[in-house]
Order: sequence, then structure tokens, then C-alpha cells
Amino acid sequence: MEGSPYQPPRGAFEDDVHLFAVSVYFEDTDLSGIVYHANYLRYFERARSDMLRALGIDQRAAIESGLGAYAVTEMDIKWKRPARLDDDLLVISRVETVRAASCSIHQRVMRGDELLAEARVIAALLSPEGRPRRQPVEWIEKFNAVLGKGV
Amino acid sequence: MEGSPYQPPRGAFEDDVHLFAVSVYFEDTDLSGIVYHANYLRYFERARSDMLRALGIDQRAAIESGLGAYAVTEMDIKWKRPARLDDDLLVISRVETVRAASCSIHQRVMRGDELLAEARVIAALLSPEGRPRRQPVEWIEKFNAVLGKGV
Amino acid sequence: MEGSPYQPPRGAFEDDVHLFAVSVYFEDTDLSGIVYHANYLRYFERARSDMLRALGIDQRAAIESGLGAYAVTEMDIKWKRPARLDDDLLVISRVETVRAASCSIHQRVMRGDELLAEARVIAALLSPEGRPRRQPVEWIEKFNAVLGKGV
Amino acid sequence: MEGSPYQPPRGAFEDDVHLFAVSVYFEDTDLSGIVYHANYLRYFERARSDMLRALGIDQRAAIESGLGAYAVTEMDIKWKRPARLDDDLLVISRVETVRAASCSIHQRVMRGDELLAEARVIAALLSPEGRPRRQPVEWIEKFNAVLGKGV
Repeated sequence: MEGSPYQPPRGAFEDDVHLFAVSVYFEDTDLSGIVYHANYLRYFERARSDMLRALGIDQRAAIESGLGAYAVTEMDIKWKRPARLDDDLLVISRVETVRAASCSIHQRVMRGDELLAEARVIAALLSPEGRPRRQPVEWIEKFNAVLGKGV
Repeated sequence: MEGSPYQPPRGAFEDDVHLFAVSVYFEDTDLSGIVYHANYLRYFERARSDMLRALGIDQRAAIESGLGAYAVTEMDIKWKRPARLDDDLLVISRVETVRAASCSIHQRVMRGDELLAEARVIAALLSPEGRPRRQPVEWIEKFNAVLGKGV
Repeated sequence: MEGSPYQPPRGAFEDDVHLFAVSVYFEDTDLSGIVYHANYLRYFERARSDMLRALGIDQRAAIESGLGAYAVTEMDIKWKRPARLDDDLLVISRVETVRAASCSIHQRVMRGDELLAEARVIAALLSPEGRPRRQPVEWIEKFNAVLGKGV
Repeated sequence: MEGSPYQPPRGAFEDDVHLFAVSVYFEDTDLSGIVYHANYLRYFERARSDMLRALGIDQRAAIESGLGAYAVTEMDIKWKRPARLDDDLLVISRVETVRAASCSIHQRVMRGDELLAEARVIAALLSPEGRPRRQPVEWIEKFNAVLGKGV
């Protein structure tokens, strides 16, 4: 089933994993003919942003109200297989741990059944001055709700 | 209506215009808080690539078979209003002229009724050696089919 | 003559033109094997930022003090020849017109004597709220000083 | 000491570490006002490419001759402190291990004495078909030469 052309790409949760589809464009590739390694981080980030939206966490409102924004503080990535122009990819994200001021998220980029890349990401909430700050209780509850859905 | 989370973003033609939805992510913005000007060119290119796909023109097959690829040779852009994080944008593309070796395309980025940016783009088909080459007759027919749908 | 490895790339004025050297990396290329068209806008912007620095205009201080930032409002670009990995490029920028709230700048990307791309760019000073604002008198004087150096 | 405006940025070895200077531009930042996390991977890659050049390894010739190209297969990164517009950064790279088909490289992004980010990177030589291949003996010797210079 296709979305409307007026409808921007949106992912969704299925049980405890968040699914987000990505298509590969010229901008993503490099002269090796495959997706440039750093661009997987952009795919991962789009998927995390979409996941926050799906959870009801409004990043833009958080920034504009002075609450702050998530920043990636650690990432451990493995690139397994290359993605190519026009490939349809799926980013699968799972919240693994929720701490007071940060979350740990496992993310994979799949092409059908093939694992192309995977990462473990730590994202910390930072105040506008760049200091770590506690995540709002409602946000932690939202994360825990999807943690709880796991099998 | 939402698309499936397994379904990557796809646009579609409505009469002679092609519609392609884009969402704004962190990667697109700069420290002014708005989308970095050069990133509109990425939105335009995604929309053109999707338009080719909607027309049945397979860019990847064309590259792999040695036919060549489209390259942008001219662009005239105006940025009117800024886009911001989480904005849902719509790229509206219209093929204006089809020549032997190139096309002229008019593209706009809209946020609802607001025009954020518009461009006139010349894309030329280049051989793998970088020389202009005639577009396949079937491709020209496909372009003419949507040209003919205009009002 | 080489710069120090501790010294980030800096351009300089020669008479009325500003020169800024750029090297092509993997990140700049796409699967066609050449520099992705939108990335020339990044080269142009680095060169303009360096030009402002060479003129003694501190963009970061202007943003942090609430004065505002330049935004590109119009661009007319032609891509003539492709750039490739490891190419050494030179961006040549010339301020053409200075108005109350904007400047017009002509920019070229050269590889030796070959013209690879050229653009005419309008950059307008915008307040933090995104409204056009008059450029400080000292800035206009700085621009006029290099305008006056032309032949 | 400044380099010539005609001279693109080049790093250099000092004993066993390779130094490469980077300046932060608008394109590098996001709406948080700091450098977008994925862009550090671009800095790291520019530094590695420059390191290969300093060692006398010609990546473009290797690609064009059909030998292949390095691909990043693993990366473990920590972001410690944010970089901002106009910051002058130094990427410090050290080859840690050289295997038959890959190298392990430690990289840091510094602003003066401050560590902003660090990464451990595995880069593997891949054939044009994407298969791991042994690095040429002369390349391994070049890597070992800088390994041997360590203290």
C-alpha cells in the first residue's frame, strides 16, 4: 500500500521496535558507487527523530521552549554490506536502556532480510547550554512503555 | 492516510505536476535554526529522481548498462521563506521543456500554501565519459506524456 | 609553499578577488564518480565565509550578539565540467554590488585554468527573526574597499 | 604561518601522528548551534584521505586502476564536547594496527587542548566488486613506517 504523495515518510512501532523506511538517492552515494558510510548516521538519526515523534515527544517544541535537545554522545557502528542507489531500506530501532539523562538505542539498516549496518547509540538530553539534564518524567514513561512491549 | 512503515516515501503525478513529500530533520538545518540553503538542492534532486521512477525511467539500470546519468547543468533558485525542523514540505515538479539531450524542470518547495523556494533546473543526459548524449526515444515520450497533461 | 598542518585552510584577497582553495574528498562525490552538484554550494559558502573573515566580519559574533546572519536568497549556477576525487580546486569570489541589506557576489570554481562552475549569489542580512536588515555601515565600507580595488 | 590561498589544506605527519586542520562552516552545524554529530565522520575521513596522500598512497589511481578503495567497516566514536562555527580544529590520526586487508586507526578531533571527539576506525580495502582484498605490500610498508615511528 502506498502513502499519499502529500504525506511525508513516517515510521511506526511494531511491538517494541520502530520501523522507518528510507530510499537511497544520488546525494547518499559516493564514487565507490555505494552509500557513503557517514550517511548511515543520517538514516539512523531520521529514524530516531521519527521514533520520538511516534512516541509523542516533540523535539522542536523542546528546543523552542528551552528544554534542550538530544545529542549523540557515543556510537558503535558496523557496516556489513553496501547499499546502492534506489535501494529501499528499513531502519529498525529498539530502545534498550533508559537512564535519567540518556537512552541507549540499537539500530539496524536492513535491505529485505540482509543486515547492511548496525549501531548502538547513546543519546543524552542536553540543556541549551550543553549540560546533561534529566529527561522529563513523561518522556521516560513513554520510553518505558515501548521497552515493556518487548518479547 | 499514512503509508506503511515498510514503504519508502514515494511521490506521484497529479495531472502534469509531480508531488513529493519531504520532512525536515536535524541533518537539514544549520545554526540559524533553519534548513541550510544547499539542502534544498537535495530535496529537489530526490523529487526529480522520484519523478523519473514514477515515469518508469530506471536511473540505476541506465548507469549500470553504461547508458549514463542525468547531470544538473544549470539552476536558477530563489529562497523565499525558511523551513524548520519537523516541517512537512511538498516538492512540486513540472517538466517544462524536453530537448534531445536535456530537460528543463520547474520545481517548488511548499509548506502548505507557502512557497519556500523555487528553481528552474536544466538536467542533461551524460555518457559515462561525461559527454552529452541523446535521451532514449521512450524516455522523451514519457516526458512528453506528462507535458501533454498540462492545462 | 605549504601551510602548517596546524593551520586551517584560509583564503586571501588578491586585488578585488578572493581566492580560496578546496580539495575534493569522498564525501563530495556521488556514484557518477564526480562531485555531486549540490556540493558546489558548500564550496561557494566556505569561500564566502572565508571572504567575510578576511574582511574582518565576524559571522559568529554577529549571530551571538543578535545582529543576525547572512542568508542566500538567490543563486544562478552553471556547472560546466566535473570535479573528481583529489582535485585541487580554487574558488574565486568577487563582490559585485553592495546594497543596504544585501550583496551580490560572483563566484567561480576553477581547476587550474578550467572553469568548472560559476554562480551569481545574492546574500541578504537577516535578523534572528528572519527579517531583512541593513548591513552595519562598517561592513558596507569593508565591501566597498574591495569593490574599489577592481580594475 | 599561513599557507598560500592557492594551496588546498594539507596535513602532515609529526612522528607517528598525522595532523590535519579543519575549520567549521555553516554546512557543518545544525539547529543546536553546534557541529552535527555525523559531520565528524567527514572530518575523520578527510584526515584519513590526507594521511594516505602524505604516505604516498594514491586513492584515485587505486580506484581508476581497478585495485579498489578503502571502506570503513567499523567505528566506535565518542563525542565529548561540541564544536562551533569558525572553530579551528585539528584531527590527529594514528595508525594502530595493520593487517593483511585492513588497518585500525585512532582519530581525535581537538580544539587546542580540548578533546572534542575520538574514534577507533577499521578501514578495509575492498575490490571494485566489494570483496576484501590484501593491501599492496608497498602500502603495508608505508603504514609500518609510521607505526615504527611511535614512541
